[in-house]
Amino acid sequence: MAVFGIFGSKTENVASSTYYGLYALQHRGQASCGIVVNDDGVFHSYKDAGLVNEVFTHRILDGLGLGQMALGNVHYGTSDTKDRINAEPMLINHVKGRLAISHDGKIVNYDELRLDLELQGSIFHTSNDVEVISNVITRERLVSSSIEEAVCKAMYKLVGGYALLIMSPQKLIAARDQNGLHPLCYGVRDDGEYVISSESCALNVVGATFVRDIEPGEIVVFSKDGVKSIREHCNQKPERLCVFEYIYTSRPDSVINNCSVHLARKRAGMFLAKAHPVEADVVIGAPDSGLDAAIGYAEESGIPYGLGLIKNKYIGRTFIDPGQNVREDKVKIKLNPVAETVKGKRVILVDDSIVRGTTCTRVVKLLRDAGAKEIHIRSSAPEFLNPCYYGTDIGSKAELIACKYTPEEMAKMFGADSVGFLPVEDVFKLGASGTCKGYCAACFNGDYPTEGPKDLGLNKFDIKISENKQTEKN
Amino acid sequence: MAVFGIFGSKTENVASSTYYGLYALQHRGQASCGIVVNDDGVFHSYKDAGLVNEVFTHRILDGLGLGQMALGNVHYGTSDTKDRINAEPMLINHVKGRLAISHDGKIVNYDELRLDLELQGSIFHTSNDVEVISNVITRERLVSSSIEEAVCKAMYKLVGGYALLIMSPQKLIAARDQNGLHPLCYGVRDDGEYVISSESCALNVVGATFVRDIEPGEIVVFSKDGVKSIREHCNQKPERLCVFEYIYTSRPDSVINNCSVHLARKRAGMFLAKAHPVEADVVIGAPDSGLDAAIGYAEESGIPYGLGLIKNKYIGRTFIDPGQNVREDKVKIKLNPVAETVKGKRVILVDDSIVRGTTCTRVVKLLRDAGAKEIHIRSSAPEFLNPCYYGTDIGSKAELIACKYTPEEMAKMFGADSVGFLPVEDVFKLGASGTCKGYCAACFNGDYPTEGPKDLGLNKFDIKISENKQTEKN
Amino acid sequence: MAVFGIFGSKTENVASSTYYGLYALQHRGQASCGIVVNDDGVFHSYKDAGLVNEVFTHRILDGLGLGQMALGNVHYGTSDTKDRINAEPMLINHVKGRLAISHDGKIVNYDELRLDLELQGSIFHTSNDVEVISNVITRERLVSSSIEEAVCKAMYKLVGGYALLIMSPQKLIAARDQNGLHPLCYGVRDDGEYVISSESCALNVVGATFVRDIEPGEIVVFSKDGVKSIREHCNQKPERLCVFEYIYTSRPDSVINNCSVHLARKRAGMFLAKAHPVEADVVIGAPDSGLDAAIGYAEESGIPYGLGLIKNKYIGRTFIDPGQNVREDKVKIKLNPVAETVKGKRVILVDDSIVRGTTCTRVVKLLRDAGAKEIHIRSSAPEFLNPCYYGTDIGSKAELIACKYTPEEMAKMFGADSVGFLPVEDVFKLGASGTCKGYCAACFNGDYPTEGPKDLGLNKFDIKISENKQTEKN
Amino acid sequence: MAVFGIFGSKTENVASSTYYGLYALQHRGQASCGIVVNDDGVFHSYKDAGLVNEVFTHRILDGLGLGQMALGNVHYGTSDTKDRINAEPMLINHVKGRLAISHDGKIVNYDELRLDLELQGSIFHTSNDVEVISNVITRERLVSSSIEEAVCKAMYKLVGGYALLIMSPQKLIAARDQNGLHPLCYGVRDDGEYVISSESCALNVVGATFVRDIEPGEIVVFSKDGVKSIREHCNQKPERLCVFEYIYTSRPDSVINNCSVHLARKRAGMFLAKAHPVEADVVIGAPDSGLDAAIGYAEESGIPYGLGLIKNKYIGRTFIDPGQNVREDKVKIKLNPVAETVKGKRVILVDDSIVRGTTCTRVVKLLRDAGAKEIHIRSSAPEFLNPCYYGTDIGSKAELIACKYTPEEMAKMFGADSVGFLPVEDVFKLGASGTCKGYCAACFNGDYPTEGPKDLGLNKFDIKISENKQTEKN
Repeated sequence: MAVFGIFGSKTENVASSTYYGLYALQHRGQASCGIVVNDDGVFHSYKDAGLVNEVFTHRILDGLGLGQMALGNVHYGTSDTKDRINAEPMLINHVKGRLAISHDGKIVNYDELRLDLELQGSIFHTSNDVEVISNVITRERLVSSSIEEAVCKAMYKLVGGYALLIMSPQKLIAARDQNGLHPLCYGVRDDGEYVISSESCALNVVGATFVRDIEPGEIVVFSKDGVKSIREHCNQKPERLCVFEYIYTSRPDSVINNCSVHLARKRAGMFLAKAHPVEADVVIGAPDSGLDAAIGYAEESGIPYGLGLIKNKYIGRTFIDPGQNVREDKVKIKLNPVAETVKGKRVILVDDSIVRGTTCTRVVKLLRDAGAKEIHIRSSAPEFLNPCYYGTDIGSKAELIACKYTPEEMAKMFGADSVGFLPVEDVFKLGASGTCKGYCAACFNGDYPTEGPKDLGLNKFDIKISENKQTEKN
Repeated sequence: MAVFGIFGSKTENVASSTYYGLYALQHRGQASCGIVVNDDGVFHSYKDAGLVNEVFTHRILDGLGLGQMALGNVHYGTSDTKDRINAEPMLINHVKGRLAISHDGKIVNYDELRLDLELQGSIFHTSNDVEVISNVITRERLVSSSIEEAVCKAMYKLVGGYALLIMSPQKLIAARDQNGLHPLCYGVRDDGEYVISSESCALNVVGATFVRDIEPGEIVVFSKDGVKSIREHCNQKPERLCVFEYIYTSRPDSVINNCSVHLARKRAGMFLAKAHPVEADVVIGAPDSGLDAAIGYAEESGIPYGLGLIKNKYIGRTFIDPGQNVREDKVKIKLNPVAETVKGKRVILVDDSIVRGTTCTRVVKLLRDAGAKEIHIRSSAPEFLNPCYYGTDIGSKAELIACKYTPEEMAKMFGADSVGFLPVEDVFKLGASGTCKGYCAACFNGDYPTEGPKDLGLNKFDIKISENKQTEKN
Repeated sequence: MAVFGIFGSKTENVASSTYYGLYALQHRGQASCGIVVNDDGVFHSYKDAGLVNEVFTHRILDGLGLGQMALGNVHYGTSDTKDRINAEPMLINHVKGRLAISHDGKIVNYDELRLDLELQGSIFHTSNDVEVISNVITRERLVSSSIEEAVCKAMYKLVGGYALLIMSPQKLIAARDQNGLHPLCYGVRDDGEYVISSESCALNVVGATFVRDIEPGEIVVFSKDGVKSIREHCNQKPERLCVFEYIYTSRPDSVINNCSVHLARKRAGMFLAKAHPVEADVVIGAPDSGLDAAIGYAEESGIPYGLGLIKNKYIGRTFIDPGQNVREDKVKIKLNPVAETVKGKRVILVDDSIVRGTTCTRVVKLLRDAGAKEIHIRSSAPEFLNPCYYGTDIGSKAELIACKYTPEEMAKMFGADSVGFLPVEDVFKLGASGTCKGYCAACFNGDYPTEGPKDLGLNKFDIKISENKQTEKN
Repeated sequence: MAVFGIFGSKTENVASSTYYGLYALQHRGQASCGIVVNDDGVFHSYKDAGLVNEVFTHRILDGLGLGQMALGNVHYGTSDTKDRINAEPMLINHVKGRLAISHDGKIVNYDELRLDLELQGSIFHTSNDVEVISNVITRERLVSSSIEEAVCKAMYKLVGGYALLIMSPQKLIAARDQNGLHPLCYGVRDDGEYVISSESCALNVVGATFVRDIEPGEIVVFSKDGVKSIREHCNQKPERLCVFEYIYTSRPDSVINNCSVHLARKRAGMFLAKAHPVEADVVIGAPDSGLDAAIGYAEESGIPYGLGLIKNKYIGRTFIDPGQNVREDKVKIKLNPVAETVKGKRVILVDDSIVRGTTCTRVVKLLRDAGAKEIHIRSSAPEFLNPCYYGTDIGSKAELIACKYTPEEMAKMFGADSVGFLPVEDVFKLGASGTCKGYCAACFNGDYPTEGPKDLGLNKFDIKISENKQTEKN
C-alpha cells in the first residue's frame, strides 16, 4: 500500500500529479486505487479495483476537476478479494467537517479497537484497517479543537506500523506511526506546492525536490499557513524502520531515511559475498528485486555479473494462470533463462528472499535445463522465522521454510549446490551509517517494537463481496 | 426504489429468484441494484450502478452461491449521481451480528437523526437514507435483546414513508412505516418459501402466491420458526397509503391493499370522463402509464379507444440525449404519433400526470403535425400543489405548473384545446372500497401524515463521487 | 435488418441523425449496428455487436466527425452468433473508389454467386449476404462507367428480397429488389437534406417529411446534383411487398406503400372478428405487436378492449434466461397477466402469429391461473405453411405447427377453448386499396415471387467466431 | 509482429499453448492479437485490439475449444489506429478450403499487387498486408494442386521481408521470405507436437525443444504425415537476416540463426567499448534493451556496471500521456535515475539506438539532475541513415537525426559530453561466426536486398475506423 498527496493551488492539475505519483508507487499495491480532489472544501472522488492506468481514464481524471489539494492511494489485494470495497481513500461526511483518509500499513490492535467502537455504536462496512482508523479519529475529533489534535490523540490508540494522509476541507495532514515502521516523506515543487509520498521515487516523477522524511510519531500539517510539524504531545518512540523496505518493498530509486534503497540492496549483496563466498563463473539476479544485490555480490567477489533470467514484462492483472490441464509452467511463463549466460557455467543466483521456497525448485530446474553446471542460491534477506504484524505478507511459522529446514536441507530440496542467507546482523548495516536509529527485523529475529495482535474472532464471518477477478471484453 | 427478499432453503437458488424479482420491480429504480445471499450466516453480496440485467451476469449470479435467504434492492438515481456508492443492500459487520439492509422510501427527519448520530461518534460515507436507518437500528441493537426488538425501537425514531427488509444471519425481517405510505407485501411458494416484495407483481414472477400486505407499523419476522407478526409495542398509526402508487409508481399488474393498480387507473379514467367530458373521435393514452386510464375514459365515454402514440422500447441507460447542436427532438425520439389514428380527428389524450408541463407542449405539437384537429388533455392525477416528503420526486412549489396556472391557461400554453384534471376528491375512490382505511394525497391536498423535514444544512458539501454516466465499449 | 442514410451538408451532424434514425429502426435488428460518415470522400466508421445505445457513446459518435453523408445499419442475430464480424455497413477500399454498403434482406442465390466469385478469385471473410453483394457490385464497377450503372447491372444477378444503401465518395445510392419485397423510402428535411430509411417511422424522428417509397427494382441516386431516379434498364418486376411487414416486422407508426402499418394490423383484427367470431367478455392483445389487431377485433365485435398482459420493458441483450435449475418460467418473467381484467371472464387473446406454438401453452396457463374462464386465441396472421427465402425467420416445414395440426388440435394442445387464424385471402386486403399492386404471402400460400435457393453446401464449415454473448462488468 | 502456431493433437489444449506462446512474443506487437483453433477442419477464432492478457480471458479461451492445430498473431499499431480491424489471423472461407493466415513483416510491392488484384475484381477491407497476401495465395490456389504449391507460387510474387503461418483444414504451413529477413523457427515437444514461432523464446515457454530455423524461401508443411520441407521450385535467395533483430527487436533469451540475441547485444557493447573508449566511473544501460550491451561494454572496458535508471514496469495500453497542461514529463514518468549510482560520477550510458534523438536530451537532463558529472552516450546500433522497407519502424531520412548531425553536434544538442555509435562494420560480426551467411543492414548502409516500394497512392483515402484508444470503466 502507498499514500500520495499534494497541497498546491488551483492553477496546477492536482489530480493529474496524483495520478503520476500513484503510478510511481504502483509496486506497493496492485489491487485497487483511488484519488480525491479537494476543491475549496468540496471533495471529488473516484476509486476502483485495478491498476492506476486501468482505473483512471482521461475522462475520469478530467471529471475530478481542479482543486487545491488531492489525496491518493494504491492498495494491495487481500485474501478475501474485496478489492473494490477496500479501495481508498475512505470518504467521511461528518458534522465536524468531511475527511478523506488514505493509509499504508497495518493496525495491530484492530480487533480490540473495532470491538470497542462497535460496542459504542459504530458500524463497519469493510474489514479494511482504514475504517477503524477513521472511526478513532472521528470520535477524537468530537472532543478536540482541531483535526490535527484529533489525529494526535488517535495515534496513542492506534498500535501498529502505518503512514497516514488525512485531508480536511482546509488541510492535508501526514502522520507516521510511533516507531516509523512504514516510510513517509515530503518534498516541494518550485512554486511552493508540497508533495507527500510513501516513497521518494514519486516525488521525482512529479517534479518535487525531497525535503525530509516524516519522523516516527510526527504529524505534519500542510495548509495555507505553510508547513507545521507537531511533535509535542505526540506518541514518539524509538525509530524502527521495517528493514524489508530496503530488501524488497521499496523501489531501488527511492531514498528512505537518507539511504538509497539500491545502495542498501547492493550492500546486502556485498555482505552476502563475504558471508557465503563460492567459486563460480557468473553472478545472476532473480528479476527484478534480486538484481541490485547480484551486482553487489559480483563487485565484491570479482565474479562477472551476467543477465541470466529474462522476466516477461507484460504480466497484467487479468493474466490467465496455467491450470492443471495445461503443460505450461507458471515460472517458465514469467521467467526464461538466457542459455548463453549459464550454459556450462557455475552460477550464483541472487534472490531477494526465500519465504516458502516454492519457486526456487522451479528456477533451479530452468537453469539446469539451460545447461548450468552448478547453482548456488544466495538470499539477500536472512531466514524468515517469525510472522509480520505490520503489513508485510509474511505468513505463519508453519509456512516459513526456514523454520523447518537448514540451508543444506533446502539446497537438496531445490536441487541446488548450495544455499546461503544474509547473516541477520548484516541487515542492521544496510542503511546509511548514523542516520537511522534503528530497524525492525522482527521477521528475522523476533524483536517486535510493539505488542502483538489479539484475535477476538471478529472477522471470521465478515461479509463476502462477489467481484469479478477478471476483466472481460465484450 | 424497491425491496425484495426470499426466505427459503438451500435447495432453491435464492439468488436467481431475487434476480427475477428485482427485474419485475425495475420500474421503481433504474440507477443501481444489488443482491445479498445468506449462506448459513455468511453473506455474499454484489451491487453496482445499472439495470438488473446490466449489473448481474451469469458469472456474478453464480458467484453469489446458494443460501437459505436473499435480499435485493433496486434504487433510483438521485441528483448527485452517486449511483454506485448508493447501491443497496447496505452491509454491516457488527459485534451483535452482521446485517444487510434494503429500503424503499424516505426518512423525513434524516438531518436531525444524522446530526445526533454524528455527535455520538458515527461516521457517514453516503447521503443515502439507509445509512441513517442502519445506524439507528445498530445502536438500538446494543440495548435490545433481539434484532426485531431493535427494529421496533428504531421505527419510533424513523419518521417518514418506507418499506424495510433486514437480513440477519438467522432471520429476514420486513417492516413498513407507521402510516403504510409505501407498499410491502409477502407471498408463499408451494414448498413453503416466503417471498417479500414492494409490489405483488414480483411474487407472481417467482411463482409465489400473494398472502397479504404488511400493515402500517407492523414488523414481520421470517425465520426457521415460521412467520411471526409483531404489532405490540409497535408504532402503528392510521393507514395513509401514497395514492400516487395507484396513479403512477406501481405496475398495473400489481395489487396493493387489495386493489388492482390497473383497475384503480381505469377508474381514474372513468372519473375523469365524468368530470371532464368532451365530444371527440378517439381516446388515446400517453404510454405507458396513461394507457389504463385512457381505456377507462373510452369505456365510460363511449368514444373509441385508439393507439395514438408509439413509444420506442429500446431506451437504455446509455442513450445519448440530443443536445443543442442537433435537430432531433427528445420527445420525438421517444414518442411517435400513429398518424392514421389522429389525422382529422378530435383527440382526447389521457396522461398520468402533469408536473412541470414541459413535455405536454411537445406532444401536442407531435399530434398537431400528424393531423389532429382537436386535442383535449386529461390528467388522471389532480393538480400537484405541494412537495412530497416521502420519496416521490415531486419538486418544490416553484416548479409545479399547477401552482401558477389554471387549466385554461395551461391549454393555451400547451397549444391544446382543453385541459382537465382528475378532481381531488376522486383520488380517494380509486382503491377497492372498504379495504384501505386512508390515503396520503398530500401532493394534491397538503394533508401530510407526518411533520415535515427540517433542513439543518448537513448535506450541502457532501462528497462528490465521480462516476461514468455512460458505458463505453473498448 | 434495416438501412438508414442521410445526404446532407457538413453543417448538420449527420452521424447524430443516423444514430437517432437507427434507434427508431432498432426493432428490425438487435444484434449489431454501425455508422459510416463520409467527409469529402474520407470515410469514418464504427460498428460493433450490440444495441444502438450500447454501441454508440458520445465519444464514439463525436469521433465520427462531421460530413456530408452518413450510412447506417442495424442487423439481427443469426444462429452462428458472429454478431461483431457481421456488423454493417461493409467498407470497401477499391481502385474505382471506396464504398460503404448497408443492406436489409436476403439473397436467394447466395451460394451460386459466391461459388462463382470464389472460382474467379474472390475471398470471403463472413457469411453475411452483404459480402456477396459487395463483390458483385465491385466486379461490375470495373466494367461500368459509374457506380449506379454497376449497381443496376448487379441487381440482375442478385435474386432475393432486399433494400440496399451504397455510399461512394460523392453519392448515396438507394436500391430496392426487383419485386419490392423489402420496404425502402425517402424523405426530405426543410433545408433540403435527404433521408433514406427502411421504414418511414425513422423519417419522422429526424424531422424529415416522407416523399415516397422506392419502387421495385428502382435505383435512386442522391448527390450534389439532387435526386435522380433510375428505372430504365433496371430489373423491375411486379410488386410483391412482404405482407409480414404489416403483420409483424414494421413499427405500427410506419407507413409502407401508402398504408399505415397500424391500420393494416387493425384491419387484420377486424377481418379476424368476422371470420372467427365468438361470444366473450373482453379482447386482449399479446404485447406488443398483437395490440393493434386486438383493438380492431374489439371494435368490429363490439366486445370491450382490455389490458390483459403486461410486458416487462427492461429486457436487454444481457438478460439471463432462466435455466433448468431455477423455478422461474421465461414467459412469466416477460409477461404478467392483469388478473382484474381476465378473472372470471371469457377472454379473446389476439396474437400476431403462431409459428411453433411454444409460448401459446404458457400464456394460456398464465391466463387460466389468473382466473380466465374461457380463452379464445386469434392469430392476426394465417397459418404458416412454407419457409421464407427473403429474410423472415420462418423455419422449415418440420418446425411449423400449422403443417402438422388443425386449429382444433392446437386449441387442445394449448389448453385454449378455440384457435382461429386470419383467412389467407384477407392478407391481400390489409394494405390501402389501389396503391399496392401485390404482396408476397409465400409463407402462407407457397406462391414465391422468385426461384428458391440451391444448397451447394458452401457454408457448412464456415469459420466460427468466438464472441462473448454477455456483457461483463469489471 | 509475430506468428505462433502449434500442430498437435486434440488431447492437448492448443489454444492455451498459443496463448502462452503469444504472451512470450508480446514485445513484437502490442496493438492487437488473435488465435484460431482448428478442430477437424472447423475453425474457431477470436481476435481484438489489446494485449494478449487483455484480449483473452478464461471464458474466451475456453470458448475456442480443443483442436489439432492453432495459429496466433500479435500485431503492432500503425499510425491509422485501425487496431481492431487489422487484428490477425485473417480468416478466409473459400471453395478450395478455408484458411487462416498470420504474418509478421512487410510486403514491399503491396501497392502494385493490390492494384492488380483490384483490377481483377478483388475487394479490400483493410490496409493490412495480410489481406494482399491472402488474395495472392487464394488466387494461386485456384490453379494449384495443393495449398503448399499455391504458397510457393505466391512467394514469387510477394516481395519483402516476412514470416508466414497458414492453416488449412489439414495442414499448418510455415514460410519465410526469400532472403530470410524476418526470423522463423520451429521446435518439438516430447510427445511429437510441433511448435512454430517467430522467436525461439516462445518455444521454451510451451515446453518445446528448438529444432531449427526455417531457411530463406523455404516452406515447411506440418501435417498428419509429419514435417515436409519444400525448397525445390522455391524462391530462395541469399540469406539477409535483419540485423536489427539482434540490436532491438528480439528478446535477449531468443536464439536466431544459431546466435543468442543476448550474446549479440553483449558483443555490440564490447565492440563499442573498443571503438569508443572513454575514462569513466560507471557503465549504465537504458532499460530494457540497452542493458545487455552495457554489460558487454563494462566487461570489455573494465569499468564497473551499475543500475542507473529504473523503468516503471506498469505502463499499459491505457496509460494517460501527460499533455500540455501538466508539469509531468513523459520520460520522467517512465524512467527514474538511481541517484546513488550516478552522483558525482563520470557515466557511460549505453542505449540500443538513436533514431530521432528526442528522448536523449531528457535522459541526459535526468542524469545531470541526479548529479552525474560527465555523461557519455554510446549507441549499440550504428547511425540510422536510410528508411526500412521490411517492417522496422525507421522513418524517412528527414526524421533521422544521423542524416543531419555529427556525433559531436548530437552531444552538444543532448547536453552530453560525448556520443559514440557502433561502427557499421561491427554489425556484421554480432552473430555467431560461420552460421549466418548474411545480414540486411540497409538502414545503416543502404544495401537493400530487394527493390524498393512504388507509391501508387492507393491508401491515401483509406477508410478511417473509429476506435476507442482507451479502456473505460463503467
